[in-house]
Amino acid sequence: MISRRTYEAAQRLTREYLGRAGIAITEAEAAAIEVADFGLDDLDRTGLQLLVYVNNDRYCAKELVLFPGQTCPEHRHPPRGEGNPGKQETFRCRWGRVYLYVEGEPAAAPACRPPAGDEAYYTAWHEIVLNPGEQYTIPPNTRHWFQAAAEGAVVSEFSSPSDDASDIFTDPRIDRTPRVAE
Amino acid sequence: MISRRTYEAAQRLTREYLGRAGIAITEAEAAAIEVADFGLDDLDRTGLQLLVYVNNDRYCAKELVLFPGQTCPEHRHPPRGEGNPGKQETFRCRWGRVYLYVEGEPAAAPACRPPAGDEAYYTAWHEIVLNPGEQYTIPPNTRHWFQAAAEGAVVSEFSSPSDDASDIFTDPRIDRTPRVAE
Repeated sequence: MISRRTYEAAQRLTREYLGRAGIAITEAEAAAIEVADFGLDDLDRTGLQLLVYVNNDRYCAKELVLFPGQTCPEHRHPPRGEGNPGKQETFRCRWGRVYLYVEGEPAAAPACRPPAGDEAYYTAWHEIVLNPGEQYTIPPNTRHWFQAAAEGAVVSEFSSPSDDASDIFTDPRIDRTPRVAE
Repeated sequence: MISRRTYEAAQRLTREYLGRAGIAITEAEAAAIEVADFGLDDLDRTGLQLLVYVNNDRYCAKELVLFPGQTCPEHRHPPRGEGNPGKQETFRCRWGRVYLYVEGEPAAAPACRPPAGDEAYYTAWHEIVLNPGEQYTIPPNTRHWFQAAAEGAVVSEFSSPSDDASDIFTDPRIDRTPRVAE
């Protein structure tokens, strides 16, 4: 579990990255930035920072911030009852660069490696590179993971409604429930 | 109907405004910017520029650009069959300032006036002011219109799926079908 100090430092750094991307946020939003360590307590390697703008029963929009080289671990958004094949999401790179890996034809020479020691939990190797202004839509129930380039990345996510608790991660150690030491 | 020359000049200006907001777009997107004159051929007063990022059967995201003082005329998004109460949309100001008017308690001293001569077609007077980083969600089937401040405005719209052709405008002269003189 990450410390309150680490959590708040990551919130401040996230705000800086949003600023570099020219994205204005309110004070209330700055305080609501979520820092996800996925229960691994290793934020420099595995983590994701999120600012949810809106998440209702019809659509969701958020900003994702990745620090340099940071990885969001492999997961999928499973079906959620009749007529809901699972969350569908469109990633649009706003700043920096993000490497996205999804199920499909594996890249011959992928640009990224998973965090050392965690290789077994990274199985999707079809590579999509997103520079600012480029976007990609991930189909429902499709395994995917992503990693920022050396400068980090700011990515807008447009999607069907979001329910992080239902995400299925390849790494069984992962706990997506937001937690921070008090 | 606006001329091809006017249309393309508005596309170029839209790209400039997106740049001021720090928003990167691809060349293909620049060419796909939609200029809506609503059939009134009076773009300086009534109009809206749009760049649709994604519009599928689950969600929609786009950027809206308003030139200085430009007005998007009053309309609503009606119900569209069982279980669909009409399009719901969240406006998030990215740059500049936008005045949004929706059904509800009228502003005592609204900041905006409709385009002169068109007053009869503007009936919603509950005022919401959006500066960069501020957002508002417009319920389905609710009459609304919006106008940019003197510097113009760039607004992200996150919404349920978009079908502009089903919009109902208060002004019966309005034709939302995209048209440009060839």
